[in-house]
Amino acid sequence: MKTLVLLRHGESEWNLENKFTGWTDVDLSTKGIEEAKNAGKLLKEKGYDFDIAYTSYLQRAIHTLQLALKEMGRENLPVVKTWKLNERHYGALQGLNKAETAKKYGEEQVQIWRRSFDIQPPALKPEDDRNPARQELYNEIDKADLPLTESLKDTIARVIPYYEQEILPKMNEKKRVIIAAHGNSLRALMMYFEGLTEEEITKVNIPTGVPLVYEFDDQGKMSKKFYLGDAAEIEAKMKAVASQGKAK
Amino acid sequence: MKTLVLLRHGESEWNLENKFTGWTDVDLSTKGIEEAKNAGKLLKEKGYDFDIAYTSYLQRAIHTLQLALKEMGRENLPVVKTWKLNERHYGALQGLNKAETAKKYGEEQVQIWRRSFDIQPPALKPEDDRNPARQELYNEIDKADLPLTESLKDTIARVIPYYEQEILPKMNEKKRVIIAAHGNSLRALMMYFEGLTEEEITKVNIPTGVPLVYEFDDQGKMSKKFYLGDAAEIEAKMKAVASQGKAK
Repeated sequence: MKTLVLLRHGESEWNLENKFTGWTDVDLSTKGIEEAKNAGKLLKEKGYDFDIAYTSYLQRAIHTLQLALKEMGRENLPVVKTWKLNERHYGALQGLNKAETAKKYGEEQVQIWRRSFDIQPPALKPEDDRNPARQELYNEIDKADLPLTESLKDTIARVIPYYEQEILPKMNEKKRVIIAAHGNSLRALMMYFEGLTEEEITKVNIPTGVPLVYEFDDQGKMSKKFYLGDAAEIEAKMKAVASQGKAK
Repeated sequence: MKTLVLLRHGESEWNLENKFTGWTDVDLSTKGIEEAKNAGKLLKEKGYDFDIAYTSYLQRAIHTLQLALKEMGRENLPVVKTWKLNERHYGALQGLNKAETAKKYGEEQVQIWRRSFDIQPPALKPEDDRNPARQELYNEIDKADLPLTESLKDTIARVIPYYEQEILPKMNEKKRVIIAAHGNSLRALMMYFEGLTEEEITKVNIPTGVPLVYEFDDQGKMSKKFYLGDAAEIEAKMKAVASQGKAK
């Protein structure tokens, strides 16, 4: 049996402001820091341990992982960082307030962008400073690979090959893996592990800062899936995620 | 030309209490956190950038690196953690107050342990909880490799082979490297780069949180060495390190 733990980053400064974040590199809020620490405490308490950790290029995920590993006494773990696990790129919506965007484009359009499977938000112009190809953080990455906007489908198309080529082989070497990432990069994995349909995955809300444990049998088939922690609290967190982007 | 930057961790909680730390995994003090951030700001300001970072298994070095990389906007760098870059193991002195130890054993004996090249402090007993072979942090490491005490010579004997086998090849691939580590693991490198004698190296005091830049020519010979930052401040920091361990 193999175990894999997914961890969505805690609340960020922009979750608080209800803005489309995407690849904007905002940090955790005070609450987000607490969520990350709690995730680490819970993992330790329940006896989880890891051999290697993966995270994105974005500090809200990196810090969530660092804080959780600190609580576990496991800061010595190798941590692999990859842009392939970044949040879905939200194109020209990045930086806009979700409620304002809903007022401007209509709540329905915003829900389409947020919840459709293959519709991209308006793309960034190449000369936009938000274009990752113009940002120092990505200067080692082939510019042609970097997106100007993404649908969930596009996100999946970079996450799953990375998982199959880089992470799965480690699991097959009996390494215990934790992945700290984002709502949409984790949904990609969830869809893949659970065989969800396009419609099903667009309705999934992954709570922030709650360890999500997958167990796989020897054939690599998912045998079990569960969140660690208090069920009522997890439920409330899922609802909070689902209600973002309403015009209010 | 190749450039390598060494960074000694900022002040730790036990520096404050004037205790022998060694492999005790204490965190940075508030001042140490500031020192680490300042190192990152300075590196960015002076135009330094890196492709890969190395640090020890100890959180005061890991956090120094994390804080500096955050200031540089370079948290996406691969960070390799290895116990080979840990501080010198201080054996049974770990956890004792330096002034108290000086009173008990005499200031001269303490200076011998602190400043001699090849004299080990009293070893830990294997059953001591401070024995790294009994600690979870080192459970992946071959127990026979882990020390119960170390002289500076012993520390050098693990640091230099690691540098030659793991770090130098990266530099030869044109990777820009930063190493965040400890007073004695960095002295090992300094002795090696500068061809210092055993007597010379025991007198070196590396200031905390100050980037130390080495430049090497194409034959791998050191061509230049300098600290980044304000000269008077660096001088004061070196003196502070040198005066530790006096009975007072």
